Parts: sequence; structure tokens; C-alpha cells
Amino acid sequence: MNNKRLYRAELIVRFGHIDEAGIVYYPRLVNYFHVAMEEFFGAVLGTDYPSFLSEHRLGLPAAHLEVDFLRPLRYGDHIQVEVGIEKVGTSSIIWRYRIFRPGETDPAALARIVTVNVDMDTFQKKAVPDWLRQCLEAYR
Amino acid sequence: MNNKRLYRAELIVRFGHIDEAGIVYYPRLVNYFHVAMEEFFGAVLGTDYPSFLSEHRLGLPAAHLEVDFLRPLRYGDHIQVEVGIEKVGTSSIIWRYRIFRPGETDPAALARIVTVNVDMDTFQKKAVPDWLRQCLEAYR
Amino acid sequence: MNNKRLYRAELIVRFGHIDEAGIVYYPRLVNYFHVAMEEFFGAVLGTDYPSFLSEHRLGLPAAHLEVDFLRPLRYGDHIQVEVGIEKVGTSSIIWRYRIFRPGETDPAALARIVTVNVDMDTFQKKAVPDWLRQCLEAYR
Amino acid sequence: MNNKRLYRAELIVRFGHIDEAGIVYYPRLVNYFHVAMEEFFGAVLGTDYPSFLSEHRLGLPAAHLEVDFLRPLRYGDHIQVEVGIEKVGTSSIIWRYRIFRPGETDPAALARIVTVNVDMDTFQKKAVPDWLRQCLEAYR
Repeated sequence: MNNKRLYRAELIVRFGHIDEAGIVYYPRLVNYFHVAMEEFFGAVLGTDYPSFLSEHRLGLPAAHLEVDFLRPLRYGDHIQVEVGIEKVGTSSIIWRYRIFRPGETDPAALARIVTVNVDMDTFQKKAVPDWLRQCLEAYR
Repeated sequence: MNNKRLYRAELIVRFGHIDEAGIVYYPRLVNYFHVAMEEFFGAVLGTDYPSFLSEHRLGLPAAHLEVDFLRPLRYGDHIQVEVGIEKVGTSSIIWRYRIFRPGETDPAALARIVTVNVDMDTFQKKAVPDWLRQCLEAYR
Repeated sequence: MNNKRLYRAELIVRFGHIDEAGIVYYPRLVNYFHVAMEEFFGAVLGTDYPSFLSEHRLGLPAAHLEVDFLRPLRYGDHIQVEVGIEKVGTSSIIWRYRIFRPGETDPAALARIVTVNVDMDTFQKKAVPDWLRQCLEAYR
Repeated sequence: MNNKRLYRAELIVRFGHIDEAGIVYYPRLVNYFHVAMEEFFGAVLGTDYPSFLSEHRLGLPAAHLEVDFLRPLRYGDHIQVEVGIEKVGTSSIIWRYRIFRPGETDPAALARIVTVNVDMDTFQKKAVPDWLRQCLEAYR
């Protein structure tokens, strides 16, 4: 992940994100990647994700997900979720995420998520539109 | 809540329902009332809640909610969520819930929730249909 | 709620907050009040809520909750959650919340939440400390 | 996954599990695997997961997760989450999950989750105890 643009979303681990073991419940940690993608749309693409769905009538459901949980996240952690693009295929996008706690250079979690671009009216896959492809390529 | 039929949904407090303080996160406890209502539909009404929405095109959003949290719920608690009806109005239904831990006669939580019967296509309120009213009256 | 200081937390309705009916799932809306309280601690009190728990060894579980759901919240809504204090008792605090959508002067939801100040080691109630009482009184 | 014992947990897709796109929010789908593991402990091991944590003082945080989302899950789906064991290492356990909708022989989702056995007091990894290893081997 060198020599390229990266986006970092700033999130806070909330009271209700913790589980019985006192760390972030891992399915809720997976949620951070989706929230970071939502922030990425709002911050760096010309349209936010709600408009992507309602106006462009497109959506990006996940088809595949891989996560490495390297260090536990705890209540109150102000985390950064780095968003990068591995590949933009015909209708798929491969996202890369890394979660950092402030002051740490080793990530607390890594993820690789494959999303498929779908038509929200038919839920059938559809080519990634050029405007989105161009924006995403800058983060590859 | 005497001399009437009551329904009890059996739920389990899950690992991910706990918060930093080691008890059920209270917004997630509120979720138990909705799940109990879903179970109530499936078990005692002639239609389940998914069909109520998709076939009858009706929904029951909450308009008002009151909850008393009397004792904390902990991970692994097998709880019973008692469902009763306080009143069936023209388009509103007032639900009463009590959460019990096994072997305890004092409730861990009490709730009173007012739902409005709405047309799912317009989100406008609509009279509670007679078949539903009759079913609910048996639990009043 | 006039002539007094109010705090407003800025939150965004996320993709995963929505339910089958296409609006914010009401138990998840209740979560917004807790997040707003967490933001209030970090922004206006001299200590954030994680430190309140871990260093002061105090916690604020909810004992009672009342919510009016007045207008549905939808995906992407940038909401403001106004936090005010109704009363600071010996060991209880009564919080008032109002949720607004931008540009709207009528609230989308109102809440009144009674929390009890507890010792996090014993979970027994404990007098609200003076430093907290003074900070809260400014928002009453 | 042939010629071996498999456990199937029965879960229901709830109203609040759905996202803006009308299908199960994928981080919430990941939660189903944890719930299925909790059910597996209660049903087939000699101890439930709450006791595993509180009495054995052991826990199973996830270190790695891979999920394939093959078909969307919708509100009201009565799903079966099949639990199998790929490998029991010194301190790690590799779990395999498959989610089925009733009447379908093709899975809706597949997962492979690596958990690490840890001492709940120190959060350091610890050898999988023999009694657990033996129980798990029957599902490999």
C-alpha cells in the first residue's frame, strides 16, 4: 500500500460495540469497514453512498470478505480506518482496509472486501460506471 | 396483568449483546421487545410478521416507548419476554412487555410500547384490521 | 428547554441502522441517545466517558427510558442529537434528548432517560460527585 | 464436509437485521456465525459458552475470518447455520460454517473462522484443553 492515495476515516469505539470479553465484538468491527466505505463516498467521490443508492440506483453488496484481527480494540479507542483500492474489475471492486489506533504503526486489523456493483432495482450485477472507476483508480 | 392470556417468548442473551459495563446494552435490550413481538406474531396470530408486512402491506412502527430497567441482564441469561396487550385503539396498539429471568418472579424489565398501524406503501396510519384486533383482544 | 445551555451531537444515520421498513430500527435509534451522551462527556465535561468508567470507576446505567418517535429517520440523515439535563438528584440524573434533522425545527424524536450513578466495582448506587453535578447543572 | 458429524443451529432473520438494501447487513450476517458457535457449545459440548468463559476462564476471539456471501438473506428467512471443524491446532481452532435457507441445497454463505484459545485473565493464548479437543474432533 505504498505510493498511492489513501483515505482515512476517523471512528470511535462506542460503549455498545464491546462484548462480554471486553473488546470490540468482531462482527461489529466488520461494521467499521462499511462505515469507512460510507465516509469514503461522502469525502472523496462526488456523490455520497445514500445518493449512490437512491439516485444512481446502484449498490455494492459484499461478495467476499477476509479479515485479520491482529490486536483487540477497546472502548474509547479513536481509530483510523484506512481505505484503499486493490482492483476495479468490470463489475467488482476489491477494497483494502487497515485499522490503526493512534500512535501505532502496526494495524489492529486488516481487511480485503470484494463488492459487486449491482443495479438496485434488479439486484443484478452491472458494470462499474466510468466516473466511479476513475475516482477509485486514484486510490489504487 | 391478571386473568388473561399472556405469551412468553424465550430468548437468550448473546455474547454480542453485552456492553463495556458487562451487562446488556440497554438499546439492545429494547430490541428484545421487538423480537418478542415478532415471535408473538408467528406463534399466536394467524400470520407471521414478515407476511404481515409483505402480504397484508401493514407495519407497526413504534410511536412511544417507556421502559423500566429493574435488574441487569447478563451474558447467557435465558430470559422470557412476556407479551400482553393493554389496548387496541382505532389505529394504535399498546403493548406491555415484562422480561423475566428463570426462577425469578420479579421482572428484570418492564415496557409499554405504543405502535401505530400503518399502510406500508404510504406509511400513513390505517385502522387495525378486524382479524388482528380479535386476536390481540384475547391477550388484553 | 429554553434559556439554558444545550449540547448538540452530530450523528449520521448509517446503512446498517435501517430496518426492513426502510427507516431507522427504533432500538437502534435509542442507541443514538447513548452515543450523544458519550459525545457530551468528551466535549463538555472535563473527562470522557471511557475515563469516567475506568478512572473514576463510575457508570450511568439507565433505569428508565421514555421516547416519542415523531418522524421516521432515513438512511443518510445527518442528525443533531440535543442533550439537556432535567434534574440532577442525589444519585440519579435525568437527561433530555431531542433529535433534529437539518433544516427542521420540529424534532424527529424526544427522549427522557433516567440514569443512576453507580460504583463500577459494586454496581451499587453512589452520590453524583460534585464536579459532575456542577458541570451538569450548566445544562439544566 | 462429508462423512462427519455436523451441527446445525436454527436462526431466524429478524426485522432489525436488514439494511437499506433490503437484505441482511453483512456485518450482521457475520454475527450469525458467532451465535451458531454459542449454540454449538450449549448443544454438543459439555459446557455452554458463558461457562466456558466464566468457569474455565477461556475465550475464543477470532484471529482470521473469510466469508463468501453467495445469496442474499431476507427478512423472515428461517436459516440453518451448519457448524463444522476444519482443524484443532495447539491453541487455534479452525471453524467452518455454511448458511442454508430451508429447501435449498446450495449455501447462502460460507465461512472459515480461525479462533485462538486464550486465557480470559491474561488474554494470552493457551493450549486447547483435551476435553474440548476431543469434543471438537468429532465434528472434524
